[in-house]
Amino acid sequence: MELKSIKKIGVLTSGGDAPGMNAAIRAAVRAGFYYGLEMYGIYRGYEGMIQNDIKKLDSKNITHVLERGGTFLKSARSDEFRTKEGRKKAYDNLKSHGIDALVVIGGDGSLTGAHLFYQEYGIPAVGLPGTIDNDLSGTDSTIGFDTACNTAIEAIDKIRDTATSHDRLFFVEVMGRDAGFIAINAGIGSAAASILIPERKTPVETLVEKLKSRTKARKTSNIVIVAEGGKSGSAQEIADKVKKHLPYYDIKVTILGHLQRGGAPTSFDRLLASKLGVAAVEGLMQGKYDVMAGLINNKLVYTPIVKAVVGDKEVDEEDLRVANILST
Amino acid sequence: MELKSIKKIGVLTSGGDAPGMNAAIRAAVRAGFYYGLEMYGIYRGYEGMIQNDIKKLDSKNITHVLERGGTFLKSARSDEFRTKEGRKKAYDNLKSHGIDALVVIGGDGSLTGAHLFYQEYGIPAVGLPGTIDNDLSGTDSTIGFDTACNTAIEAIDKIRDTATSHDRLFFVEVMGRDAGFIAINAGIGSAAASILIPERKTPVETLVEKLKSRTKARKTSNIVIVAEGGKSGSAQEIADKVKKHLPYYDIKVTILGHLQRGGAPTSFDRLLASKLGVAAVEGLMQGKYDVMAGLINNKLVYTPIVKAVVGDKEVDEEDLRVANILST
Amino acid sequence: MELKSIKKIGVLTSGGDAPGMNAAIRAAVRAGFYYGLEMYGIYRGYEGMIQNDIKKLDSKNITHVLERGGTFLKSARSDEFRTKEGRKKAYDNLKSHGIDALVVIGGDGSLTGAHLFYQEYGIPAVGLPGTIDNDLSGTDSTIGFDTACNTAIEAIDKIRDTATSHDRLFFVEVMGRDAGFIAINAGIGSAAASILIPERKTPVETLVEKLKSRTKARKTSNIVIVAEGGKSGSAQEIADKVKKHLPYYDIKVTILGHLQRGGAPTSFDRLLASKLGVAAVEGLMQGKYDVMAGLINNKLVYTPIVKAVVGDKEVDEEDLRVANILST
Amino acid sequence: MELKSIKKIGVLTSGGDAPGMNAAIRAAVRAGFYYGLEMYGIYRGYEGMIQNDIKKLDSKNITHVLERGGTFLKSARSDEFRTKEGRKKAYDNLKSHGIDALVVIGGDGSLTGAHLFYQEYGIPAVGLPGTIDNDLSGTDSTIGFDTACNTAIEAIDKIRDTATSHDRLFFVEVMGRDAGFIAINAGIGSAAASILIPERKTPVETLVEKLKSRTKARKTSNIVIVAEGGKSGSAQEIADKVKKHLPYYDIKVTILGHLQRGGAPTSFDRLLASKLGVAAVEGLMQGKYDVMAGLINNKLVYTPIVKAVVGDKEVDEEDLRVANILST
Repeated sequence: MELKSIKKIGVLTSGGDAPGMNAAIRAAVRAGFYYGLEMYGIYRGYEGMIQNDIKKLDSKNITHVLERGGTFLKSARSDEFRTKEGRKKAYDNLKSHGIDALVVIGGDGSLTGAHLFYQEYGIPAVGLPGTIDNDLSGTDSTIGFDTACNTAIEAIDKIRDTATSHDRLFFVEVMGRDAGFIAINAGIGSAAASILIPERKTPVETLVEKLKSRTKARKTSNIVIVAEGGKSGSAQEIADKVKKHLPYYDIKVTILGHLQRGGAPTSFDRLLASKLGVAAVEGLMQGKYDVMAGLINNKLVYTPIVKAVVGDKEVDEEDLRVANILST
Repeated sequence: MELKSIKKIGVLTSGGDAPGMNAAIRAAVRAGFYYGLEMYGIYRGYEGMIQNDIKKLDSKNITHVLERGGTFLKSARSDEFRTKEGRKKAYDNLKSHGIDALVVIGGDGSLTGAHLFYQEYGIPAVGLPGTIDNDLSGTDSTIGFDTACNTAIEAIDKIRDTATSHDRLFFVEVMGRDAGFIAINAGIGSAAASILIPERKTPVETLVEKLKSRTKARKTSNIVIVAEGGKSGSAQEIADKVKKHLPYYDIKVTILGHLQRGGAPTSFDRLLASKLGVAAVEGLMQGKYDVMAGLINNKLVYTPIVKAVVGDKEVDEEDLRVANILST
Repeated sequence: MELKSIKKIGVLTSGGDAPGMNAAIRAAVRAGFYYGLEMYGIYRGYEGMIQNDIKKLDSKNITHVLERGGTFLKSARSDEFRTKEGRKKAYDNLKSHGIDALVVIGGDGSLTGAHLFYQEYGIPAVGLPGTIDNDLSGTDSTIGFDTACNTAIEAIDKIRDTATSHDRLFFVEVMGRDAGFIAINAGIGSAAASILIPERKTPVETLVEKLKSRTKARKTSNIVIVAEGGKSGSAQEIADKVKKHLPYYDIKVTILGHLQRGGAPTSFDRLLASKLGVAAVEGLMQGKYDVMAGLINNKLVYTPIVKAVVGDKEVDEEDLRVANILST
Repeated sequence: MELKSIKKIGVLTSGGDAPGMNAAIRAAVRAGFYYGLEMYGIYRGYEGMIQNDIKKLDSKNITHVLERGGTFLKSARSDEFRTKEGRKKAYDNLKSHGIDALVVIGGDGSLTGAHLFYQEYGIPAVGLPGTIDNDLSGTDSTIGFDTACNTAIEAIDKIRDTATSHDRLFFVEVMGRDAGFIAINAGIGSAAASILIPERKTPVETLVEKLKSRTKARKTSNIVIVAEGGKSGSAQEIADKVKKHLPYYDIKVTILGHLQRGGAPTSFDRLLASKLGVAAVEGLMQGKYDVMAGLINNKLVYTPIVKAVVGDKEVDEEDLRVANILST
């Protein structure tokens, strides 16, 4: 066991930012201090690791960041880290600081990077699931997902005011390139007439039938939630198709876009990020390498990164069943 | 004077909905009750007037509506009201209910309708400025404008989290087809790098220069606010042009869209709507017809509708000057 | 099995209101319609059952209630329902409407009422956990708890602005008469210096030592979260005691109070309430009587009411451990 | 004229913090940079001036502060600044940094300090009205007032959920020691049954009569807003008195307290603070000393500090009249 060897941990965020990343950084750093470790911030993800944008963190760096969206360590894409040469530079920089382990917060690409790096250079890393998309296995919920769902429903609540005032049909596009998790939560939470997700193909005819039957039931306003990565097309494309079938309808499209990534994290995400941040450091201290820390059934679980990023997380059939009952 | 004749007042909302419309309806209805009048809700604007969708209101109808976005009287376009026949039907319906005056809450088109109707049929009407665009003269602020500005900055605050985390350039399109009021308030309120409004032409070169100079000053993230009706094109079009000049920049576009219309009204809009709702009824009782009630320098003013809708409200030069100083 | 017999279900809310109650009512009613049942609203809880304040619900009653705090069916205490005579009246009223089953949404007292009623009169009932306190067994989270935690942290985020600006010590009292769930979530989520909960006794000396050690670590502002039912006294009492030990400190007390009960439910509570509302009706149809529907590890579970209300739900030791690490 | 002499400006916040203070600091500092001046942050108000807690500010210090509540320059009471010796020390420190003018953001006490200091040492100062209480003359609205009103109505909206669900009477105490501005805005904005302000004495009997008459009109829930400095006593005291007259009523009291001071500033406060921050620096450059910058009827006005702090700002009679009509 190399447990004794870990004295300096580097923390980085990578990929799309997610609310709660700051809370996770803070928890990891604070846990490090609790156990007498030195903690380093690696700025702008792997790119900063290559550029040697690395600074020792003290207590002041993590004051009043818990409640802020985004990531104060910043995030960036790094094409260079995909090359052998890039990773060599990154490794050399870590060694120059004496950093002997990593906490990597991000989505599947970011965690895969940590895995590769561990394979090549033996730098122990614990990954944390930081993405609003909730598309990582090994945890019931990723850091940022709950906040994104709340941002979405708050926006849709506002759109509903207008939909209802004008008896309109709104198509609202939410984030989720490969996964319908936000769409399902936001759809059930906003009494959507229909929810279109990447995991299921919904023919336009089916959607049109549903909207017609709701009109008969005198539901005069309707909101349809579309996950951006849906197989049936973008919200605008689907709206255009529906318009042909329902020409008398006043149809509008709103794309929530990047505002779903930001904002103060919710209570749930703060708690999740706090627990996982501590778990990342404790995991490293216990020799748990090349894993992602997550909460499953509210229990801490370390899953090998290769399993976490495999992309087999499925939407809850029960959620879809309930969504259907409630929108009929 | 026909003051004694007013015993039954009809209230309607028309055009795009705006937060605070419900508060204005409530205030008018409650003021009517205070003065012993009968109050009628005309649903779905002029269309409902033609369709005779008119109901007597009681205290219960206006309970817990003050704080809600949208309009519980609903709003709709009415092509038929643009015809002589349509207006004749509308008049007959009003007479059948004995309604002898109107409170019309909406934007320039809605108020112009009230003016025409007064010219043709002598139905006294007081208009209230209900639109998020703030493009009516005769009032410093329209009902809904303050809420829309706050909705915009709250959304942009979230977008900034991502912009900062990734050192990105965001173009955010806000509402304002003919008027840059929301753009200016949201732009100053969100530390925008630049604000593009319909009233001013900003060459792409000027914008690019500004962004370059800010990059030199090491402002790594930038937000540009674009009013939807801007002469320089949509946010997406401008972004595309800027991208050609600054190809290395990571540029994103977000269109806030209809969520700016909804939401619980702010304190300011509740107070404004409450005062104007009372003023509408008191104005009618005092024989002030064919006018719009507004607040100028916090004093109640009745402006002839024809003057209010003329579209000559100008943006505050001082605001533009301050915006420039703060973004340099 | 009496499965076929259920044709009319009465829904009521009872006890302190909680955000998401409306979403749960809506889901139950909508599920009832889906299965072809008649649904009745029993207003003001058991009191309304005795007063025969019972109305058949249609689709319109549950439009736009999902996103609203409180309960449109209202809630009330009922001393009379504690008497045999009261319950007899209540039963007679149910029978007069032909109501043959109940969905009861509320806390332990409300569910116990449903249990008693089932024992005495055989009226099948499924209870739903509707309380911000999260003190019911048989579900990981009660409806309203997540919203209350978010309301608390949003308020504390604001208080922190002042605490930090003035280097002050704030005692913030949150709800939780017998349970520290809100206090723990809000405490971790707001980087509290200490969290005082009913389940643990924290001597003032321990608290004072912690505050002193934080001062040494130059954490100049501090927030202490106190659950209202804490054994160590109210927030004000504890503040007064601490003041004696730390007279130089500028100490303030804020009691969040009833605002924690209200507000639009969060995404989590909307989803939870929606799933449980459907589960209540489906449970009754499947002959699951005298039980509470809950979600444990995201799976639907029906727990006998007598077990759900026993009050043995424990705070998560891991949460307390993490809270301690993060505040040290 | 000493216009040329101003090259280094110190900025401080003093007294109770208010949302928008950061936006005002940022605007002043940015305007200073625009005009080529050096800008200094004086931390913890006059206390920091005495302790020489003064740092030169650069662009980075004011990045992402606009949208944050509180004041990053911090605020503190200073008993020592009330002494000749204290002010002498403060002056010496300013001179040691070469600071030749001040921007002072705060309430009446803070501005009076700037006035005294100018009288004694000739240090030019422009004050900015930074207080949620809106009790300064020379400006229609103080920085922070609009945000505080919005915070209050958002909290009261939540309390109303519970009030309505239980048919309760709530007394909500808002800030305002000498002034009823927040109470009036929050009261009208939340459909309060009655508003008790320091400027008017409301006998308990009058309040009880109003509540009785509303009960007759079947308004089953009621909210009474009480400004903390009301002549009729605290919210709790008034509630206790009312309880004696209306023993059957379920009465609750909530004190909003310090959460009214914090939070992200509203659009209005960001714009106001931005304009006044620029005006402070430009005023100093134009030789406007010993004045407070404010906006009256949306025009920039410099008022002698001695006039601004005199405490003669009156509540709007029209607001009170409207409040009465709407609550009857």
